[in-house]
Amino acid sequence: MKILLSYLRFTVLLFPLLAMQSDKPLRVIFFGDSITQAGVGQTGYITQLRAMLQDKGLGDQYELMGAGIGGNKVYDLYLRMDEDVLARKPDIVFIYVGINDVWHKATHGTGTDYDKFLKFYQAIIKKLQDNNIRPILCTPSVIGERTDYSNEQDGDLNRYANAIRVLADQHSLTLVDLRKDFQKYLEKHNKDNEEKGVLTRDRVHLTEAGDKFVAEEMMAGLLKK
Amino acid sequence: MKILLSYLRFTVLLFPLLAMQSDKPLRVIFFGDSITQAGVGQTGYITQLRAMLQDKGLGDQYELMGAGIGGNKVYDLYLRMDEDVLARKPDIVFIYVGINDVWHKATHGTGTDYDKFLKFYQAIIKKLQDNNIRPILCTPSVIGERTDYSNEQDGDLNRYANAIRVLADQHSLTLVDLRKDFQKYLEKHNKDNEEKGVLTRDRVHLTEAGDKFVAEEMMAGLLKK
Amino acid sequence: MKILLSYLRFTVLLFPLLAMQSDKPLRVIFFGDSITQAGVGQTGYITQLRAMLQDKGLGDQYELMGAGIGGNKVYDLYLRMDEDVLARKPDIVFIYVGINDVWHKATHGTGTDYDKFLKFYQAIIKKLQDNNIRPILCTPSVIGERTDYSNEQDGDLNRYANAIRVLADQHSLTLVDLRKDFQKYLEKHNKDNEEKGVLTRDRVHLTEAGDKFVAEEMMAGLLKK
Amino acid sequence: MKILLSYLRFTVLLFPLLAMQSDKPLRVIFFGDSITQAGVGQTGYITQLRAMLQDKGLGDQYELMGAGIGGNKVYDLYLRMDEDVLARKPDIVFIYVGINDVWHKATHGTGTDYDKFLKFYQAIIKKLQDNNIRPILCTPSVIGERTDYSNEQDGDLNRYANAIRVLADQHSLTLVDLRKDFQKYLEKHNKDNEEKGVLTRDRVHLTEAGDKFVAEEMMAGLLKK
Repeated sequence: MKILLSYLRFTVLLFPLLAMQSDKPLRVIFFGDSITQAGVGQTGYITQLRAMLQDKGLGDQYELMGAGIGGNKVYDLYLRMDEDVLARKPDIVFIYVGINDVWHKATHGTGTDYDKFLKFYQAIIKKLQDNNIRPILCTPSVIGERTDYSNEQDGDLNRYANAIRVLADQHSLTLVDLRKDFQKYLEKHNKDNEEKGVLTRDRVHLTEAGDKFVAEEMMAGLLKK
Repeated sequence: MKILLSYLRFTVLLFPLLAMQSDKPLRVIFFGDSITQAGVGQTGYITQLRAMLQDKGLGDQYELMGAGIGGNKVYDLYLRMDEDVLARKPDIVFIYVGINDVWHKATHGTGTDYDKFLKFYQAIIKKLQDNNIRPILCTPSVIGERTDYSNEQDGDLNRYANAIRVLADQHSLTLVDLRKDFQKYLEKHNKDNEEKGVLTRDRVHLTEAGDKFVAEEMMAGLLKK
Repeated sequence: MKILLSYLRFTVLLFPLLAMQSDKPLRVIFFGDSITQAGVGQTGYITQLRAMLQDKGLGDQYELMGAGIGGNKVYDLYLRMDEDVLARKPDIVFIYVGINDVWHKATHGTGTDYDKFLKFYQAIIKKLQDNNIRPILCTPSVIGERTDYSNEQDGDLNRYANAIRVLADQHSLTLVDLRKDFQKYLEKHNKDNEEKGVLTRDRVHLTEAGDKFVAEEMMAGLLKK
Repeated sequence: MKILLSYLRFTVLLFPLLAMQSDKPLRVIFFGDSITQAGVGQTGYITQLRAMLQDKGLGDQYELMGAGIGGNKVYDLYLRMDEDVLARKPDIVFIYVGINDVWHKATHGTGTDYDKFLKFYQAIIKKLQDNNIRPILCTPSVIGERTDYSNEQDGDLNRYANAIRVLADQHSLTLVDLRKDFQKYLEKHNKDNEEKGVLTRDRVHLTEAGDKFVAEEMMAGLLKK
């Protein structure tokens, strides 16, 4: 009897420790558009992030997966999230979307209305949380690297980024504020106010330096809390 | 004994008939945008259709419900279909969408890309069929009533309408080809090639005559097969 | 002396005739966008038209010049007409514009409003006529070759083409109704309802066959009246 | 004879002075869109500016005229400048345009391309200068009063405003930098980051306070140099 009690006590004490030392790494999905699609490439931000985690000795703790498709807007993510996200049973999902929602207004007449953007974004958050998945929100980085707020879509991007910031706050979610981070970085490193060539090669898609920068910001978000 | 047999035989013969005369009416939901939202108004097409069915002695067989929201595009229907359609357990759902998907390209820069339109439309059909609900597809009526194909969005609307016709064919679904029906009607009744005032009051939203016309076309679709 | 008088009389009588048979050919400028810019290329419609006129023995009577610039809309023509048209003192000017005015609405958000299109078009006609230059109007050909009115911009193009038809009528000007001509030709030669590959290589810019077809239509317009 | 010479010399010396003290006031035209059209209203900026000049005792020196038409973009100004500006023989012309060039991209698909905007703007400057008229350039004020650069068109407006600043500099013209002035004012007086209600009643068109503010800025520009 005494032995049994001892054993039980031991088990109970040990239990949280065992849970934490689980062999299974956290599965992390990056859910987004063409930037994320390229993220799994040789120098893509997901690939670079994986290497960074290994360098820190955290390689075993995270399993990183890409789920980016070019041209995707927020409702495209919603439509394919069962198949491309939930079915893969992740623990954490980075939502990195919004650029096409703004950009395609000007180039195709098929952007996303602000209120609809919010609705779908919230629906994605809800569905992830209903499945016990932790969402990490990212603001859309840039369409153009000029730092004096003279890139054509700056105003609209800022507006959608603000909305994501509010959502992160309301739901107490980790925020990777790429838009703010890019602005700060570019104020230092884009002295000639060029519209591309520093973090992006074409105003939107990342250079290797851009991928590195995003990987660092993503890591900070992942390790937070 | 002979009487009993007779009675039984009579009952057996009668049975299919009784089944058809089931007490429970078929629940029909009209799923769409502002035209359908107005459809439940005093002279709206759903209201008029209900009266027409009663006149035909079919009032007990169909229960009509509106599920229209102004400004809705195909992906808005998809987002809210669990709550607004599936939860109400309909037998039949009319999908009447596409006008805003085309129109908002020009007025807000937030229309729906053709390929995305198809994807969401198919997803709606699939979800209805997975729930044993019969979809009836409608082509988008008009943005402008001119009959010489000189309404600004005619080309694009025809393209989206063609896609819906193909979907109806592929899935062997009933099609209410409003776009084609409107064109035929207007060729007869819009001799001055006016852009509004016959079936619509503002190029899109229906006059009472327009609601009557849609009600008739919907009834034909409903009673088909 | 008598002989001299005779000679003089003869000359005087002959003079108007000589004037009509002037050695100086009529100078014809084609004023337009990228289609006209390509029109002076090796197989361009202006080059082909020049050859056709020579085949007909009319080579000496017409001097053809191109004045097309890619991306031009009606107001671009107006802005540069002093330099690119009036300064070259033409007798006849073909105005072939409208495609970008409609197309750029969808692709750049920078098309031309219908009423503004009319205003600038009329201003161009007026300025030409004030300078004793004969304008010949052309309707915009196509953006997409499908014949069932399902090319995205068909409705809008038809609307702008209608306006040009009315202007030609109001001002009693020769009209080369390219849009109507293309439609007729394609109904015969585009049986599979393809959106490109018959008269255009990319829905807008002409194949060699397209250039030939335009050259023929332009010749008919040039020789009319 | 000596007296006569003296008199002549005196006159010659006096002449420039007399010219400057001419009885004839300087004719000033405000050339623009709906904001300028409203500028001649009871509380419009032109009306308020006239009163301000009178208060300063400068009422006799300036004759102010409005030439604003709602919906005008840069090329509309160019098209009507002979009739509405040159024919009235002004000494000074304020060019206040650009809002619709940017705004109508999103609302009608008919904004003005950046490079075309520049071309027409330069053509207006040139035509004024060729007629010995002094242009004063104004940057476009605002579409939305939020101060954190989150108004939808902020980026694009900044870009077009930058272009006007460069033009003013290149041509050594007086610049009324309304956009910068508004931003500064709003940072002080729009603490809640509202998108309208301070200097505008609807994000674009001026409140009485807005008209007063513009009048003050215009006066500073007018009296400069």
